[in-house]
Amino acid sequence: MGANDGRVLEEGSAEETILRVAGKLRALSNSGLYFADNPYQIETFEQMLALSAELTELVDARPLAEIQRQFFDDTRYVSPYVVVDTAAFDDAGRILLIQRKDNGRWALPGGWCEVNELPADGAVREVWEETACRVALSGFLGIFDNNYHGGGGLHHLYCLLFAARHVEGTPIVTRETLDVGWFTPQNLPWDALHAAHPARIRFAFEWQQEPSRHPFYDLPRGHLHPTWQHNTRQE
Amino acid sequence: MGANDGRVLEEGSAEETILRVAGKLRALSNSGLYFADNPYQIETFEQMLALSAELTELVDARPLAEIQRQFFDDTRYVSPYVVVDTAAFDDAGRILLIQRKDNGRWALPGGWCEVNELPADGAVREVWEETACRVALSGFLGIFDNNYHGGGGLHHLYCLLFAARHVEGTPIVTRETLDVGWFTPQNLPWDALHAAHPARIRFAFEWQQEPSRHPFYDLPRGHLHPTWQHNTRQE
Repeated sequence: MGANDGRVLEEGSAEETILRVAGKLRALSNSGLYFADNPYQIETFEQMLALSAELTELVDARPLAEIQRQFFDDTRYVSPYVVVDTAAFDDAGRILLIQRKDNGRWALPGGWCEVNELPADGAVREVWEETACRVALSGFLGIFDNNYHGGGGLHHLYCLLFAARHVEGTPIVTRETLDVGWFTPQNLPWDALHAAHPARIRFAFEWQQEPSRHPFYDLPRGHLHPTWQHNTRQE
Repeated sequence: MGANDGRVLEEGSAEETILRVAGKLRALSNSGLYFADNPYQIETFEQMLALSAELTELVDARPLAEIQRQFFDDTRYVSPYVVVDTAAFDDAGRILLIQRKDNGRWALPGGWCEVNELPADGAVREVWEETACRVALSGFLGIFDNNYHGGGGLHHLYCLLFAARHVEGTPIVTRETLDVGWFTPQNLPWDALHAAHPARIRFAFEWQQEPSRHPFYDLPRGHLHPTWQHNTRQE
């Protein structure tokens, strides 16, 4: 996410709220622009998009003009993006973590899913790229919505979490990482984890004890949309 | 997906291959443009992007100029998009399906996940918007990669599949649907299903019989990336 350049806001809930509101505003503007059928609507949605950029600038170190350029060049951000994380265990039951270069926090290996790649292949690939270890997937643990697990940024992310067994290789520091290693729940750097990762690491250890448990997903908040879409024709 | 306007290609594997290759080429170009640090690289990736548009035109009814405009305006398509589908069952064990207006095929209710929306809320919302039925989620069934289940289009999609119980409401035809109804495995229009849906509907019925079963995901194909990212520093 955009670094804070020293303005009033600290890392944490205010910054996350601003990014969440700005992101939603941006997506609504993009949907609106897509379906707009007159110049007035286009103007309205472009103004909303400009407001979203203005809001984003509060917590993003880049100049407003650059944020605006990005937002107006990319008006197809209407859906969350998808990333994959892997909880890889060795035979001793330890979990594989990396220390991220961008912010020094510890995290599960993971990253963007790529176009034309299976989620499962992405999970194996990210472990390979970030640690040089080969793993075999052993299960799908669930979907973690970054909006609710502290991983806020410019885009709303859904994280698909896999479990895996270590197959081969000693973890190696790569150019994306500062450090890498195997951890037990006892010696794991809980206070130095990347914000979104404590929940998924805890779940992974629980799953390891009880592999029959159901996959995790954030329970519905229950805000249904209005009924404007329904006509009166009965089945 | 883009309609075929009468050119040589039929619906099916050739069209899907072209869209898959064009989509990957487009994503690679977009990543390349993002990281490019000299004009030569930019020119190379822009040429790749133009080739991707040219390829897409083979199976897309729109004029090439329009496809090019879309591709060059949206250079942030680097990751698959995410959709949600819901297998909602009534007390008799029947499943809720809709007939899509765009192609007349039957499918599970579902659609794009929205920015700032939980996957679970999206699953409930789509059933509500497309059928006017209220459902309560009862489980997460898995991830279905549309590249491997016949749902090809301009974008690579991951589908998150939920199960749900019917709570309230008679299914109603909406402006997105031609028809809607409850089906048993015996009277379900298997031959008139949208391409990507037989696998997930079969899985949903199996899960209904055995709710303890593990979530579905497409098994890794196992193509690991080369080792260029690794340096030699050992842990």
